[in-house]
Amino acid sequence: MDRTRIREMIKNLTQLDYSKMYMHDFLETWHKNDDEIAATFKVADILRGLREAGIAPRIFDSGLGISLFRDNSTRTRFSFASACNLLGLTVQDMDEGKSQIAHGETVRETANMVSFMAETIGIRDDMFIGKGNAYMREVSAALEEGYRVGVLEQRPTVVDLQCDIDHPTQCMADMLHIINYYGGVDKLKGKKIAMTWAYSPSYGKPLSVPQGVIGLMTRFGMDVTLAHPKGYDVMSAVESIAAENARASGCTYKRTHSMEDAFEGADIVYPKSWAPYAAMEKRSDLYTKGDQDGIKKLEKELLAQNTNFKKWECTEKLMKSTSKGQALYMHCLPADITGVSCKEGEVEASVFDRYRVPMYREASYKPYIIAAMILLARKADPADTLMRLLDSGAQRIK
Amino acid sequence: MDRTRIREMIKNLTQLDYSKMYMHDFLETWHKNDDEIAATFKVADILRGLREAGIAPRIFDSGLGISLFRDNSTRTRFSFASACNLLGLTVQDMDEGKSQIAHGETVRETANMVSFMAETIGIRDDMFIGKGNAYMREVSAALEEGYRVGVLEQRPTVVDLQCDIDHPTQCMADMLHIINYYGGVDKLKGKKIAMTWAYSPSYGKPLSVPQGVIGLMTRFGMDVTLAHPKGYDVMSAVESIAAENARASGCTYKRTHSMEDAFEGADIVYPKSWAPYAAMEKRSDLYTKGDQDGIKKLEKELLAQNTNFKKWECTEKLMKSTSKGQALYMHCLPADITGVSCKEGEVEASVFDRYRVPMYREASYKPYIIAAMILLARKADPADTLMRLLDSGAQRIK
Amino acid sequence: MDRTRIREMIKNLTQLDYSKMYMHDFLETWHKNDDEIAATFKVADILRGLREAGIAPRIFDSGLGISLFRDNSTRTRFSFASACNLLGLTVQDMDEGKSQIAHGETVRETANMVSFMAETIGIRDDMFIGKGNAYMREVSAALEEGYRVGVLEQRPTVVDLQCDIDHPTQCMADMLHIINYYGGVDKLKGKKIAMTWAYSPSYGKPLSVPQGVIGLMTRFGMDVTLAHPKGYDVMSAVESIAAENARASGCTYKRTHSMEDAFEGADIVYPKSWAPYAAMEKRSDLYTKGDQDGIKKLEKELLAQNTNFKKWECTEKLMKSTSKGQALYMHCLPADITGVSCKEGEVEASVFDRYRVPMYREASYKPYIIAAMILLARKADPADTLMRLLDSGAQRIK
Repeated sequence: MDRTRIREMIKNLTQLDYSKMYMHDFLETWHKNDDEIAATFKVADILRGLREAGIAPRIFDSGLGISLFRDNSTRTRFSFASACNLLGLTVQDMDEGKSQIAHGETVRETANMVSFMAETIGIRDDMFIGKGNAYMREVSAALEEGYRVGVLEQRPTVVDLQCDIDHPTQCMADMLHIINYYGGVDKLKGKKIAMTWAYSPSYGKPLSVPQGVIGLMTRFGMDVTLAHPKGYDVMSAVESIAAENARASGCTYKRTHSMEDAFEGADIVYPKSWAPYAAMEKRSDLYTKGDQDGIKKLEKELLAQNTNFKKWECTEKLMKSTSKGQALYMHCLPADITGVSCKEGEVEASVFDRYRVPMYREASYKPYIIAAMILLARKADPADTLMRLLDSGAQRIK
Repeated sequence: MDRTRIREMIKNLTQLDYSKMYMHDFLETWHKNDDEIAATFKVADILRGLREAGIAPRIFDSGLGISLFRDNSTRTRFSFASACNLLGLTVQDMDEGKSQIAHGETVRETANMVSFMAETIGIRDDMFIGKGNAYMREVSAALEEGYRVGVLEQRPTVVDLQCDIDHPTQCMADMLHIINYYGGVDKLKGKKIAMTWAYSPSYGKPLSVPQGVIGLMTRFGMDVTLAHPKGYDVMSAVESIAAENARASGCTYKRTHSMEDAFEGADIVYPKSWAPYAAMEKRSDLYTKGDQDGIKKLEKELLAQNTNFKKWECTEKLMKSTSKGQALYMHCLPADITGVSCKEGEVEASVFDRYRVPMYREASYKPYIIAAMILLARKADPADTLMRLLDSGAQRIK
Repeated sequence: MDRTRIREMIKNLTQLDYSKMYMHDFLETWHKNDDEIAATFKVADILRGLREAGIAPRIFDSGLGISLFRDNSTRTRFSFASACNLLGLTVQDMDEGKSQIAHGETVRETANMVSFMAETIGIRDDMFIGKGNAYMREVSAALEEGYRVGVLEQRPTVVDLQCDIDHPTQCMADMLHIINYYGGVDKLKGKKIAMTWAYSPSYGKPLSVPQGVIGLMTRFGMDVTLAHPKGYDVMSAVESIAAENARASGCTYKRTHSMEDAFEGADIVYPKSWAPYAAMEKRSDLYTKGDQDGIKKLEKELLAQNTNFKKWECTEKLMKSTSKGQALYMHCLPADITGVSCKEGEVEASVFDRYRVPMYREASYKPYIIAAMILLARKADPADTLMRLLDSGAQRIK
């Protein structure tokens, strides 16, 4: 990307009102207004442009990025690490196993104790319904108070790296992929996107991706369909948000129990497994009670239930029914690929393979999305910062 | 803090003689003379001032800070990471489980092998009486030799992040909190501080905090009382140091077996659980012998012994007996808070909560104390370095 | 080292043709030509010279170095971390236990997913014959493709931090130690080096060091002898390379089953335990089959087999038989030292101790060798980069 184009993008950025992002967190996308969402995409694109132009967007000379993962992660962990590194922050893992957390200290205390020099805290806590997002909000409130009373010299920004409700860094990266794939937000009007359940031999996958997708993708004038077998409902509160978004952006949100219906004429398909919301609620209760037998029983039931829907696979045949037979296939990765990572899975190997490069490109947006979220929350005038970076021409590599 | 004030502090620093800190470690506080202790506080305050003024005190362009924890840690781990980051060092964890240490290599060898580009090694080794401090000294001797014979290009500084004898980074942070709370060292003359045992439902807590406190706080003209139930003695060698310090600074050091006595009229109280020294010695022997049954038996005995002293709790009633009923309550955190982190513990929830903000402030000094320890050991003329940082005005955030 | 000398070394570097190292990996040394090997040594020496002169060779403002260890490591882990830090890269551990790798994703996918901002990936995978090197090549191919199709903005360099075939960072450090010990490559003609097996009470040690040594040391006009008991053969393909190298460099490569023969008149000795190649192949098969009983049985057999060769120890008596009784003793560390780390081992304690400092010096080259490998692969004109660093005089420590 040449510097003239980057300069133009920074100028466009100044036309958006994102002033309230300063000193705030990035949790669910639906708590950000349209300008804020647009600014995040814009800053992500600018940061990528700067890096590709060999300019180092290092805004911090020092400072920590705290990484707190309560579930395994490759992509998001590395994306957060990459984003912090790009901006000049050093990642410090908060490994609860090596800490004194178990000692009974409160979330408020821990949040303050690790944050004396922290600019951001990225949290993945997606295992239990009703827990992850609540935990992030508890951390956030503690940081807010710590900053207010002068314990913390700066207010670290909480970035939701996947919770029980939303997966904003994933879905924002997905969306930026769509925007750039089609050449701009203005090209999306009337496009049809199908977020559909797909069969997986594993169970208990988070609902944050389908929820995040319907909660975000309904904001851009695209007709969004959520498809899943009966019993695989997502949180109804998020469906309400999706419906409201659709109304506001002049498109439709609908739900179906047929994968075929959802694929028919779709421009974009996102077939992915998830667990039924009700079952995940039950599972959270069982964990709270420590009912190991109950958990095993539930797991068995869910796996058995899944097997009733093996036909929910993204096949070449289904792909043919999409718009011109060429819908953009998307996935947050890793996927359960039939005959590759499992015997029967979410997608036929040939479909997956055909879209491999676009999907890797899709994933490549995540570090920039996270960096944009941090930058917008930590700088009062990000456009000014970015313009100065561009003008300084600070080389990333000597 | 404004720059004029920082400049003044740097000038004051030059009036202290701390030349011997260069190229040396920071282990027990009592091996540092008064000027050296004062210089550490001063540099910590200056570094904080610089950071608050937006100036990056990054003195290293590259270099490693080795982090070696043989016990769990949140606060100290993050404080060390923060200190290294502030100065421009990158933390590399020495995870003995992932290393070839078990392979039978010597401490001398490991210390050299990890240190080719290390500027500091922070070590926590507090589990076993007679082991932790000895280990740090063995590492230190190896580094000294490695540097002398030219294997190491620089002499990494060992920082004691808690051993079996002292917890210098904690107690120095505690002391700086006291100094700044009262507005200067000269305000402390005649103040009364009570370091007292308190009940905890867990057992085997290190003695390093009470030992560190009596070994350090007796140097500032404050009357120091150590209170604990019979049988909960600390190392007698450290008590001797405390008594000698008190004589030298014109105050008193005394021991009592009554929490009430210690609290009576105290200006500062530090109620915290620890294990009896004799029991910890026994425990070390049992571990050396690998006597698992003996260890379990001892644990049981100690827990039973603790329960005899549940009345050793920092209550509102006790707090009322302190000076003006308003003694400064301190804790190294995490605390065992009655009704919060345990059923019966070291402190009543209302007392803890009232002092929560000051305690978080207390903890916030630790990163700066550690950074000061490193800076004073790695730079021949720290005042000059700090003045140049101030004059350069290098911004921490662009 | 003074700057005039560094300048001269950089000028010498420009006379070598190492242009093909740019954008390529560093796997087996025998896939690099003589100029490339010489350039790696030269750059390592220059980087060391710069650092010793207080000049920061930080060429990256940001960027990640991915560290992927499938076996324990102290030295190599810290050497990779040190090399990355020296150049300005931040190490991000790829901990497969905390990732979603087990989820069935392909090597191709993972390699791309972690590399969006990676400049290098260092891999240790030395446990199984036929696996480690193959894995590195799979990662490499994935990165090559990812870069080609535009998923990755840069082509990360794979550095082999020990595989089943070679241990290039170790053997290059060993060799640079020899070169500098004798004062230059031109001093090595006709020197005799003995790479010999030695007894160890453990089993299954990788073959990568003896293989790496005979594959590399035969390129410098030194007569190389490989000595081991019958049945402890190394990969025959590597022996062929050694023999060919020897022919090309006008020296000899020979194999013997007598430690005494190998030591007789040797200038350099490298006594070290390893496992028989055939047994390691068998072990890989057993692991593939998951045959735990077979593995235990093989382990027992190998340990029993080892005990037949306890006389293969580097004793003072054997050392006397070397050239002038003063051969340079080498080891990759940690060694099995008789009476220190084990009852009976590879080397007598007095021999080991006499060579301890040179061995630590030997190890100290590894960070610079790795940094040189990265630099040569990431910069199109490394000599220019290094000269600019020298001229800028950028201080490592303020």
